[in-house]
Amino acid sequence: MDNKSMLMIPGPTPVPEAALLAMAKHPMGHRSKEFDAIFAECTENLKWLHQTKSDVLSLTVSGTGAMEAGIINFLSAGDRVLVGTNGKFGERWAEVAEAYGLNVEIIKAEWGLPLDPENFREKLEADTEKQIKAVIITHSETSTGVLNDLETINRHVKAHGEALIMVDAVTSLGAANVPMDAWGIDVIASGSQKAYMIPPGLGFVAVGPKAWEAYKTAKLPRYYLDLGKYRKDAAKNTTPFTPSVNMFFGLQVTLQMMKAEGLENVFARHKRLMTTTRAAVQALGLPLLAADDAASPAITSVMPPAEVDAQKVRTLMKKRFDIALADGQDHLKGKIFRIGHLGFVCDRDILAAISSLEVVLREMGYEGFTPGAGVAAAAKILAES
Amino acid sequence: MDNKSMLMIPGPTPVPEAALLAMAKHPMGHRSKEFDAIFAECTENLKWLHQTKSDVLSLTVSGTGAMEAGIINFLSAGDRVLVGTNGKFGERWAEVAEAYGLNVEIIKAEWGLPLDPENFREKLEADTEKQIKAVIITHSETSTGVLNDLETINRHVKAHGEALIMVDAVTSLGAANVPMDAWGIDVIASGSQKAYMIPPGLGFVAVGPKAWEAYKTAKLPRYYLDLGKYRKDAAKNTTPFTPSVNMFFGLQVTLQMMKAEGLENVFARHKRLMTTTRAAVQALGLPLLAADDAASPAITSVMPPAEVDAQKVRTLMKKRFDIALADGQDHLKGKIFRIGHLGFVCDRDILAAISSLEVVLREMGYEGFTPGAGVAAAAKILAES
Repeated sequence: MDNKSMLMIPGPTPVPEAALLAMAKHPMGHRSKEFDAIFAECTENLKWLHQTKSDVLSLTVSGTGAMEAGIINFLSAGDRVLVGTNGKFGERWAEVAEAYGLNVEIIKAEWGLPLDPENFREKLEADTEKQIKAVIITHSETSTGVLNDLETINRHVKAHGEALIMVDAVTSLGAANVPMDAWGIDVIASGSQKAYMIPPGLGFVAVGPKAWEAYKTAKLPRYYLDLGKYRKDAAKNTTPFTPSVNMFFGLQVTLQMMKAEGLENVFARHKRLMTTTRAAVQALGLPLLAADDAASPAITSVMPPAEVDAQKVRTLMKKRFDIALADGQDHLKGKIFRIGHLGFVCDRDILAAISSLEVVLREMGYEGFTPGAGVAAAAKILAES
Repeated sequence: MDNKSMLMIPGPTPVPEAALLAMAKHPMGHRSKEFDAIFAECTENLKWLHQTKSDVLSLTVSGTGAMEAGIINFLSAGDRVLVGTNGKFGERWAEVAEAYGLNVEIIKAEWGLPLDPENFREKLEADTEKQIKAVIITHSETSTGVLNDLETINRHVKAHGEALIMVDAVTSLGAANVPMDAWGIDVIASGSQKAYMIPPGLGFVAVGPKAWEAYKTAKLPRYYLDLGKYRKDAAKNTTPFTPSVNMFFGLQVTLQMMKAEGLENVFARHKRLMTTTRAAVQALGLPLLAADDAASPAITSVMPPAEVDAQKVRTLMKKRFDIALADGQDHLKGKIFRIGHLGFVCDRDILAAISSLEVVLREMGYEGFTPGAGVAAAAKILAES
């Protein structure tokens, strides 16, 4: 059956009908009072979602554009930065930093493992001359489904006192707790096609007071990505460049939905989706890439044994059940498959995905599980939550 | 009556229902064969629209982001560039060039007047050492409704032989003839919310072979706006960063509509909309900002006499008839109003706007025209076309 597709990739994520219909409205002028009101409401709710009183700025960019803006507005060429890399996105931020002539020092972990906060502590404590200007990390590493320990790494950055912390929270914001003000995070980047529950096309950058202080002397060139311009105009409920008007129609709806659900409930739902997915996959005898204590609430990466071709699992899931799962990236391409459970995803979706996976694995002749074991494991958790 | 609004601003422009409904479809994975096919079709039709065999790249940015990408990918700090400024957008490109440390020389004309191609010829001919690396101009200056003489200025750039020409065609592409290959234009930037007939959110940069040659040695820092990445991935029908999937659903529809109408017919329609609007406005005794031989087919700026408050015209047009007209920008704010006739606009829309304007002017007590004169002037042109 065609046209009944189900997105279980880590983005674009499923979009509620109410948001799709809102985005199908005729655009309005972006310099009108009507649009100003929508923009103001979205900005207010974005602050709620970031748990901050600081600025959350909306740009017409992808998540990468948002993160680049979050880096280049607060630094100057030659500045020493620590970049944590344990997956494709961490590596990308190192590339961005290098493209702008920053002095990049990489703190690495294997793909699938979390960054070790101790590595950050050591570097930061050794920097008695306070030359490290920023620590750049990915919270939820989308390429592997690893959640890095932002809270602890951030504590070491605070102890350093000078460095800013810049966080890619593209697949964690709205799925995991990222209390910007309580933790004192300086920069947070995210993107619309993730927990925001709307299509790709909008990027968000939250900026705290210490970062704005650094902005005053930062010298990397920028114009379209100049966050000072966005801040100045946001104070008047507008944007320096034509905003993606129809995306805001959708964003207005989904932020209202998130508020109605409640932040704690949104986080609890993602945690439940993660726990259920992980238990079910393990009950099918399939190993998980990330350990329990470093698992992202947004994505679960499955690394099947040699007899189960990951690529074929994805192909059959698509063909038989019209469920889109994500491939691995770079050296993990074809070796893992990734199940996205981020955004507009409910318990029923996980049950549908797991039971479909059982059928596909049986079709493939894999005998590593008792039929029904995946769903049974999922059902146990759901019945008890 | 609410909810029957009519956009006659120079962007966002009206969007056909078929495009709105296409954009309301559920997103698909951007790394899927289904999306690759849509992207490939859009890219092919974008080349048709640009009349080029070179690359037309799609970015998730506003028109400003597209133009910035078009500038910074082909130059290095200190490069000498000529920037034509005769309105807000020309001035913006000078700001962009300065933000990146280029050696900017401004060729200026008053707002409302076209750039003088002779000024370009003189500078370019005097540059016997070939130090001018680029000429940056705005084709249709959205802030005033002036169409600069791109063809002649481009001829002088070709005669120079070394400099690239980078063109902001944001409100001219798809409204006026911009034959990229035939004229040998190096870089053309445009945006989705104009003649493309979809909402804001996508920017396009067309790049010719000479610009790609310059790309090899250009050193300005960039990552998200690095066009080389987009070119590399476009060859595989994909994008380096998550594309605005739903915007492409709309773009696919409107490019098909443009192809069905035919390029010559699209240009002829815009010319007719322009001529009709200008004749009608003049018949109402209201002066036009731009002269006939420098009038943009996308926007008509009206500079009413002292007894007619431009701001009030806009307010009443909105209140009485739900027609959105644009204000002037910067020092022309409140002094002119701008009528957009760009994109999904038909003859009937112009008649509706002009007859509404007649009512509003009468309500304001303005007696500078014979009742019906505006519509009569419009009707004469339309009856004869």
